[in-house]
Amino acid sequence: MSDNGITLYDLQLASGATISPFVWATKLALGHKGFDPDIVPGGFTGIAERTGGKTERLPAIVDKGEWILDSWLIAEHLDAAYPDRPTLIGDPGIRPSAQMNEAWLWQNAVGPWMTCYLVAYRDRSLPQDHDYVTSTRERMFGNRKLEDIIVGREDRLPQISANLELLRSTLRENPWFGGETPNYTDHRLLACFLWLASVCDTPALVEDDPLRDWIDRGFDLYGGLGRHPGLSNIFGLQIRDGDPEPFNRNPVANGLSKRNTGVASTSGETARITGKATEQADA
Amino acid sequence: MSDNGITLYDLQLASGATISPFVWATKLALGHKGFDPDIVPGGFTGIAERTGGKTERLPAIVDKGEWILDSWLIAEHLDAAYPDRPTLIGDPGIRPSAQMNEAWLWQNAVGPWMTCYLVAYRDRSLPQDHDYVTSTRERMFGNRKLEDIIVGREDRLPQISANLELLRSTLRENPWFGGETPNYTDHRLLACFLWLASVCDTPALVEDDPLRDWIDRGFDLYGGLGRHPGLSNIFGLQIRDGDPEPFNRNPVANGLSKRNTGVASTSGETARITGKATEQADA
Repeated sequence: MSDNGITLYDLQLASGATISPFVWATKLALGHKGFDPDIVPGGFTGIAERTGGKTERLPAIVDKGEWILDSWLIAEHLDAAYPDRPTLIGDPGIRPSAQMNEAWLWQNAVGPWMTCYLVAYRDRSLPQDHDYVTSTRERMFGNRKLEDIIVGREDRLPQISANLELLRSTLRENPWFGGETPNYTDHRLLACFLWLASVCDTPALVEDDPLRDWIDRGFDLYGGLGRHPGLSNIFGLQIRDGDPEPFNRNPVANGLSKRNTGVASTSGETARITGKATEQADA
Repeated sequence: MSDNGITLYDLQLASGATISPFVWATKLALGHKGFDPDIVPGGFTGIAERTGGKTERLPAIVDKGEWILDSWLIAEHLDAAYPDRPTLIGDPGIRPSAQMNEAWLWQNAVGPWMTCYLVAYRDRSLPQDHDYVTSTRERMFGNRKLEDIIVGREDRLPQISANLELLRSTLRENPWFGGETPNYTDHRLLACFLWLASVCDTPALVEDDPLRDWIDRGFDLYGGLGRHPGLSNIFGLQIRDGDPEPFNRNPVANGLSKRNTGVASTSGETARITGKATEQADA
């Protein structure tokens, strides 16, 4: 046991890289609080046995003998038990919006990416987990074979990337979801990209995606937790003729994203709205 | 001038009801801080003249002689200037997520609702604003007549309602976006529904929409700011055979929304995932 006394039950692939986005969120949260937990390794098989029947899901941590079984409850526990360390959730209003943003990301990217990477997901899992991953994921996706589910993924990946514009527009205005520094909202969302890196046997995003800056900074956090050698490069998607643009190259600021500091700050938008912009000025 | 010394430049319809969602957010924010501002009335026409050339957009407030011209900057000003009054934005991490949630709501509902209510929007505006609203909105929507844009709205409204599931799932877990009490995230999102109420000449949501509880509580805030007689009832949408379900009547909890407190809390989901649930147990 390391001297900080926290044990983390991990959910890993054969490489030792974490697979579960929920465990990734907890790893980032522990790093943010300055903890370097003892890791109990393992995959999907035997969670109840490893944890003495405490849970069938991970993450779980044991902190000075106390078990906490859920990634949100763990983050809340860490803030309550260690208020002198950097804050994860600085206000009760952080959690509802973080949950909404994360649910949006699952709907628009994690779920669709799942349909592209399920074969690698299974092949990279621990040998004893192959049957579990195959049968549960085939059931989730309408009882189709994993090899059939991923067919056509090269046609789907550019659109999934295009779906992420709301993340990009938010990050144009803010270096982190936490503001000037990362908070647990960043951890929840970065965890989805760490999950992606754990399973993507072909890149999901183009090299020059504007999200890359935040993702790279996020993967570097806390001693480079996101730089585990078992992770794949998520950047390098090749766009073919006829594919949708993988991100918006000409985003237009409006009242939602741009602050009004006087007439000079809004005159461009006014010209657009009233039709008084020349094509030159619009460009 | 009222004794608290804050003046708000409003953006109104002919009824006197506020139309702009940005002004609505500021009205709620002022109410949250306990202020009852002096209102300078008016519509789209003559903003620069009314404000002495300070701005061509509203809201604007004047607080003890200081002009603040932007709804986010106003909220930040109110927290900084009046830290002893209820907090609007309790952590730097509130703003990025609130902006992302609001941009999502504009994309999925405000924009689509606009295509349903543009004629009422124009007809309810002040007489001197009719031409401005008509020409700017026709330009925004591809130079089509307002009367043509709204055609088929009865076919679109049920799907727009269905698009709001992320709000509903967040509010199943949390009474407000601020947690146990409303914060400025609630104000930003409620402002979109107040805008809706200002223009909807036919209801947008069904009577038993699960969002109604939060919307009703939100419209009642601060002396019932959302109960202005110029607003329409947004509930009462009639669903026809073949329409999409206006909301999910059987939401399934998963690891994103449900907290793991031990095996009993996850066994239902496990049965589903592993195919061991009977149809009875699934129901």
